[in-house]
Amino acid sequence: MKIALAGGVGGAKLVRGLVQILPPEELAIVVNTGDDFVHLGLNICPDLDTVMYSLAGIADSIRGWGIADESWHFMDALARLGGETWFRLGDNDMATHIERTRMLANGQSLSDVTAILCKKLGLQHSLIPMSDDPAGTFVDTDRGQLAFQEYFVKHQCEPTLKRVNYQTKAQPSPKFAEYLNDDSLTGIFICPSNPMLSIEPILALSGVRETIRARKIPVVAVSPIVGGKAIKGPAAKIMSEMGVVPSPVSIAQYYEGLLTAIVIDNADSNLASQFKNVAVSIENTIMTTAQDSRVLATSVNDLVDKLYSCRTE
Amino acid sequence: MKIALAGGVGGAKLVRGLVQILPPEELAIVVNTGDDFVHLGLNICPDLDTVMYSLAGIADSIRGWGIADESWHFMDALARLGGETWFRLGDNDMATHIERTRMLANGQSLSDVTAILCKKLGLQHSLIPMSDDPAGTFVDTDRGQLAFQEYFVKHQCEPTLKRVNYQTKAQPSPKFAEYLNDDSLTGIFICPSNPMLSIEPILALSGVRETIRARKIPVVAVSPIVGGKAIKGPAAKIMSEMGVVPSPVSIAQYYEGLLTAIVIDNADSNLASQFKNVAVSIENTIMTTAQDSRVLATSVNDLVDKLYSCRTE
Repeated sequence: MKIALAGGVGGAKLVRGLVQILPPEELAIVVNTGDDFVHLGLNICPDLDTVMYSLAGIADSIRGWGIADESWHFMDALARLGGETWFRLGDNDMATHIERTRMLANGQSLSDVTAILCKKLGLQHSLIPMSDDPAGTFVDTDRGQLAFQEYFVKHQCEPTLKRVNYQTKAQPSPKFAEYLNDDSLTGIFICPSNPMLSIEPILALSGVRETIRARKIPVVAVSPIVGGKAIKGPAAKIMSEMGVVPSPVSIAQYYEGLLTAIVIDNADSNLASQFKNVAVSIENTIMTTAQDSRVLATSVNDLVDKLYSCRTE
Repeated sequence: MKIALAGGVGGAKLVRGLVQILPPEELAIVVNTGDDFVHLGLNICPDLDTVMYSLAGIADSIRGWGIADESWHFMDALARLGGETWFRLGDNDMATHIERTRMLANGQSLSDVTAILCKKLGLQHSLIPMSDDPAGTFVDTDRGQLAFQEYFVKHQCEPTLKRVNYQTKAQPSPKFAEYLNDDSLTGIFICPSNPMLSIEPILALSGVRETIRARKIPVVAVSPIVGGKAIKGPAAKIMSEMGVVPSPVSIAQYYEGLLTAIVIDNADSNLASQFKNVAVSIENTIMTTAQDSRVLATSVNDLVDKLYSCRTE
């Protein structure tokens, strides 16, 4: 059994490949909830929804969030009432937030609610929220401290990032903790998501980084940085603001002490010699189609299997 | 200054006429909130919305509730998630519920929230909820006790009604109480709404019936029953179940001790001699167009003025 750690769009792309090659009982998909927030009274989980919609085949792949062929009548009506419209909620998407909020208010855990929503949307694989506790990321910026979605959506990542604050006291969700400690766990995938904003909130949870290290199993990351740029999102901008050169080498350094191997793009093959203490695999990491995702997922999965078998020999 | 007591559709039709002839400072529109309930985590006020949308010119007059040219993407998506769909919430309508719920959760009163929503929708006249307290009507039926909307929408008024339970300890909203006690109050309109389900919840509020009686001002009702049938809704069915013949005479008896005059339809002119202790006015009470509403409202308003001047002579 393997665990994939995922954020939103980049994570969803690799996960979309992994689910094609690994059956549900061999893949636990753990998703960042550091982006979660309560907005207009609704519990919104942007990364869970992005991955869930992607696996359900209903994600808007061009916009990168929400549901394809979405309509916006609610949002337009809300604007007429003078409501807050900086976080766009589509008419179809609203059903997810309303149902999630209702079930959470009934006392169900985010893990249970997520499993129910995934099942209703026809997913074979269940998504596991990283935590059932509130675990929202806050960022210190040149405009003061902001909740994650204020920084990310309301201010469009424009403020200069000074520091990211994680919820280190939040507990991993029961299933995440169970899988982390499962004897049959043979590897961890770190999806090509933003290291600081999507993956670190998961690793920073109480005991998670320590447990992964202690397992001595292969941990393989796919670099979200290609050719000095993020494939999507503000990872490169943020790395620069934090004084780091945006490159797959920096990604490997970021995960130092945890990472067994990193998968970098063909475009960055010239950097291969710069990696220290980590195996490097060079692949096409740009996933445009479901087939691209499947091919990369197969390579990454094979790499984990190979590293695991070397370890146990 | 005059007060109009209104429920949903029938109330909205007369109110639509009254606002054409009386300026905002001369008309307080008090709306039933006995139908209100919390559904999917949202505070829903069906009668307030029906009157509000009607005055804003956006009501769906054919369906009798909600917004015209509504879309249902949220509802369809909710059905796909297995959510509760017996109470239909349109995409545009959702914005009202989300904003109301958000403001109430912030500690604003229903009166304040309603005033804000009315202003945003461009209404000149503000609607006044009958109460800022929870004041939901419960009904005893042959299928047990039901919350109002369960009876009215979920079960489509099919259960036989045995008894209606009002929230007699709820207080009238501050503005309603203020206007009831205002020296300049010269009359009360009881709109052609369901007496038991829409008007009685207002009259049953703590002190309201007693205060109206003590004012000794004209109280004029427009009969919601024409030709033995309700113009819309289950009034006739309910009256029969409660052992009352559905007729404007029964409406006058229902309001006995409170009513100065009743306005009945031309179709019921043969019943005129059957009314005891109440003045009768015969008009066209079927309001199809805004002009119909204006004509009837003018007659009813003139009647109140006439009765008030007689009283003070």
